[in-house]
Amino acid sequence: MTVTSVANNGSAYFPNEPKGPSVKTSTIPGPKGKAAIEEISQVHDIGAVKFPVDYEKSVGNYLVDADGNVLLDVYSQIATIPVGYNNPTLLEAAKSDEAAIAMMNRPALGNYPPKNWATMAQEGAIDFAPKGQKYVYYQMSGSDANEVAYKLAMLYRFNNLPRVNGDFTEEEKTTCMNNSSPGSPEVAVLSFRHGFHGRLFGSLSTTRSKPVHKIGMPAFHWPQAHFPALKYPLEKYTTENQAEEDRCIEEVEHILNTHHCPIAACIVEPIQSEGGDNHASNEFFHKLQATLKKHNVLFIVDEVQTGMGSTGAMWAHEHWNLPTPPDMVTFSKKFQAAGVYYHDKNLRPHAYQHFNTWMGDPLRAIQAKYIAKEIREKDLLQNVKTVGDFVYTSLEKLAEKHPGKINNIRGKGKGTFIAWDCESSAARDAFVGRMKMNGINIGGCGVAAIRLRPMLVFQQHHAEILLSKIDELI
Amino acid sequence: MTVTSVANNGSAYFPNEPKGPSVKTSTIPGPKGKAAIEEISQVHDIGAVKFPVDYEKSVGNYLVDADGNVLLDVYSQIATIPVGYNNPTLLEAAKSDEAAIAMMNRPALGNYPPKNWATMAQEGAIDFAPKGQKYVYYQMSGSDANEVAYKLAMLYRFNNLPRVNGDFTEEEKTTCMNNSSPGSPEVAVLSFRHGFHGRLFGSLSTTRSKPVHKIGMPAFHWPQAHFPALKYPLEKYTTENQAEEDRCIEEVEHILNTHHCPIAACIVEPIQSEGGDNHASNEFFHKLQATLKKHNVLFIVDEVQTGMGSTGAMWAHEHWNLPTPPDMVTFSKKFQAAGVYYHDKNLRPHAYQHFNTWMGDPLRAIQAKYIAKEIREKDLLQNVKTVGDFVYTSLEKLAEKHPGKINNIRGKGKGTFIAWDCESSAARDAFVGRMKMNGINIGGCGVAAIRLRPMLVFQQHHAEILLSKIDELI
Repeated sequence: MTVTSVANNGSAYFPNEPKGPSVKTSTIPGPKGKAAIEEISQVHDIGAVKFPVDYEKSVGNYLVDADGNVLLDVYSQIATIPVGYNNPTLLEAAKSDEAAIAMMNRPALGNYPPKNWATMAQEGAIDFAPKGQKYVYYQMSGSDANEVAYKLAMLYRFNNLPRVNGDFTEEEKTTCMNNSSPGSPEVAVLSFRHGFHGRLFGSLSTTRSKPVHKIGMPAFHWPQAHFPALKYPLEKYTTENQAEEDRCIEEVEHILNTHHCPIAACIVEPIQSEGGDNHASNEFFHKLQATLKKHNVLFIVDEVQTGMGSTGAMWAHEHWNLPTPPDMVTFSKKFQAAGVYYHDKNLRPHAYQHFNTWMGDPLRAIQAKYIAKEIREKDLLQNVKTVGDFVYTSLEKLAEKHPGKINNIRGKGKGTFIAWDCESSAARDAFVGRMKMNGINIGGCGVAAIRLRPMLVFQQHHAEILLSKIDELI
Repeated sequence: MTVTSVANNGSAYFPNEPKGPSVKTSTIPGPKGKAAIEEISQVHDIGAVKFPVDYEKSVGNYLVDADGNVLLDVYSQIATIPVGYNNPTLLEAAKSDEAAIAMMNRPALGNYPPKNWATMAQEGAIDFAPKGQKYVYYQMSGSDANEVAYKLAMLYRFNNLPRVNGDFTEEEKTTCMNNSSPGSPEVAVLSFRHGFHGRLFGSLSTTRSKPVHKIGMPAFHWPQAHFPALKYPLEKYTTENQAEEDRCIEEVEHILNTHHCPIAACIVEPIQSEGGDNHASNEFFHKLQATLKKHNVLFIVDEVQTGMGSTGAMWAHEHWNLPTPPDMVTFSKKFQAAGVYYHDKNLRPHAYQHFNTWMGDPLRAIQAKYIAKEIREKDLLQNVKTVGDFVYTSLEKLAEKHPGKINNIRGKGKGTFIAWDCESSAARDAFVGRMKMNGINIGGCGVAAIRLRPMLVFQQHHAEILLSKIDELI
């Protein structure tokens, strides 16, 4: 299997990919898939299974299911596959001594890092960090990463509280062991309505997308502000949208002035993904940053879903051109490793205040290095931009052709990170089902949205197949 | 490199291991280690670094540091390395097609499991599950695993609350989006003083070992009971110890009767590790289980550190011979994969109530399969028992020889999961430092304890080296 350089020259990234989707069974999952699910049920929960996959046979942008159905995948394992199934460069890297040693001698990184950990973290994170970010804390998942960002913000605040002789008080040390104040203070993280930041107990307290994520679980009494609900097309509603964004910033300001406990940080997605692919203008984020700075509240950008290239920039927030970098940027998904970027060494707390057994996974750092190398060497950001622009303008035409079916198209100039609203939740779900049975694995989000989350190796010829199926089945 | 069957026959598991430790530098880290730390500091926090390691050169029970010092490792990356550095069977498995495909095509397991996921989960978890456990939820780390166990217990409670037409109420759905009751109810997890269950926001609310873990962080108002503080030698203090354990059970009962909100679950380590290697009798755990059952509170056993063989049983709680299995058992560390075992399908909540992008990592499930195979084929549990008994009785002799230096020896009949108390915290830290400079990497826990956490391939000849160094340096 050889890989040809792509991006604009029209050659196929995966020469051995199927020419197109093919569906052989009358349902997906078909008989073999259903049998596999029944078996899985004997050992594991199957409540959310869509269909079992043959990962050995899947290649590039194409997913092969247990029944041999071949689907063009524009959902990519919930936006996590960066450069195609069974990417030959990655498979080769997986079998290297470097990877095997990292996998089978997994270190307690905080205590006993590999002697070349500086190089590994440099090549596996810092070399492609968002502009202005200098340091990294690795974690295990996006939820973990966000929680670590919250902890760093809270510890930064707490460690710098004025104290008589500098050290923590006996009362602080004693009360924290009982989960009570002042040692365990009430301190909050501000998030936005419809935001999604994970489902562990701290991250879940900032997640505000759907009741199914939150119902039945205790939560911290942390505040939420409205995220702008923009009207489309943007050109038509400039005045209304600016008023809406100003209203949201005023609400942030109001919360920061009035919340019942200190707010250590504010977290926001550049594009609210799970919550419906909601966008805001660059100006909104400029104003948000300025407001947070004024109140000494740290600014965390959650790039778990938007990072690693799918908006045509390595990091979605780079589109904003902020005057100074955000305090922290969290990552996971396509990165395969997860963690937190930061640029101020003062965010490092005292030894062991942030610590856990593994502190990340060098194996996944090695993987990230190869993914980033592939993005660079194959000029995949340019590919994403070009294909994304093509998809966006084609969708605009399809929207005209099918009135009322493709509404509020979002993601102009944001690579392939594109979404639109169907007429209703039911219409969206039915459309996703029809697409699947016609060989396109596509995902929804929010109430009635379709979100496109193809890989970075999604090319013009794949886009043409996708668009013709949308045209046919919308 | 060949592997010989071990356990009792005296042959070396790793024929190519060093004959013993060797330290060449006057400090650890030496000059090369210090230079590596300085480099790491440019990209990563170094607050907790002990010394950088050459993982390529480390073999079996021996860690090689950046300066070429060779240390016998009885701490094993905070108890996580199961069968030796650069275990040849594991290295071979790491380079298999199976592992490469799992690594580079990481699925969103909840939605798109591999078609053979039933077999993978069976061989990677169920085949060596604690007695009575039938199902698994994989997670990313021990902290995650505990939080998922809490969530499952809370959802089980919440989903089964009596409701007029069965479905959640509109009020529940609305209020949970604001983090408020009744949708986000106050509901607690009971844990024990000195317990350690992780450092994410939910797990941290049950962790009660040291202020450095907790200070400055908000916490849920969850209760803690005293864990028995047994007196040693156990034979001498049977009456006092039974009274102490009864007192703790009464406190549990009191908390369950009086806490200000419902308690969904209770979590306990079979041996409190981070908190000081605190043991309790089998009877204590029988009584605890009975008390929890009476109150319909789910019983979670945290086997993150104790599981996978180091007590001479695959799972430490199997020593208890409970009449019925615990409701959930959590695992991580030596398992490499992490997660929750359970045996009642009713603990599976509604679809998407427990869900996240990755839902575990098939690569680490494959690794667990090979680790378990190695344990079985090389009869490593028997090795752990035999060597553990030898270490325990030898320590008793050393305690007599060095009065006041080796106190409260713990872990009789619990394999190599052995600990003792030094005279003081300072004496413990100084001893750990002397051992390191003499080629033994050993760990502390609690206030003044030394905990032995060797790998499962720690044999008689390694134990003799360890014991002679203790004799020399205590």
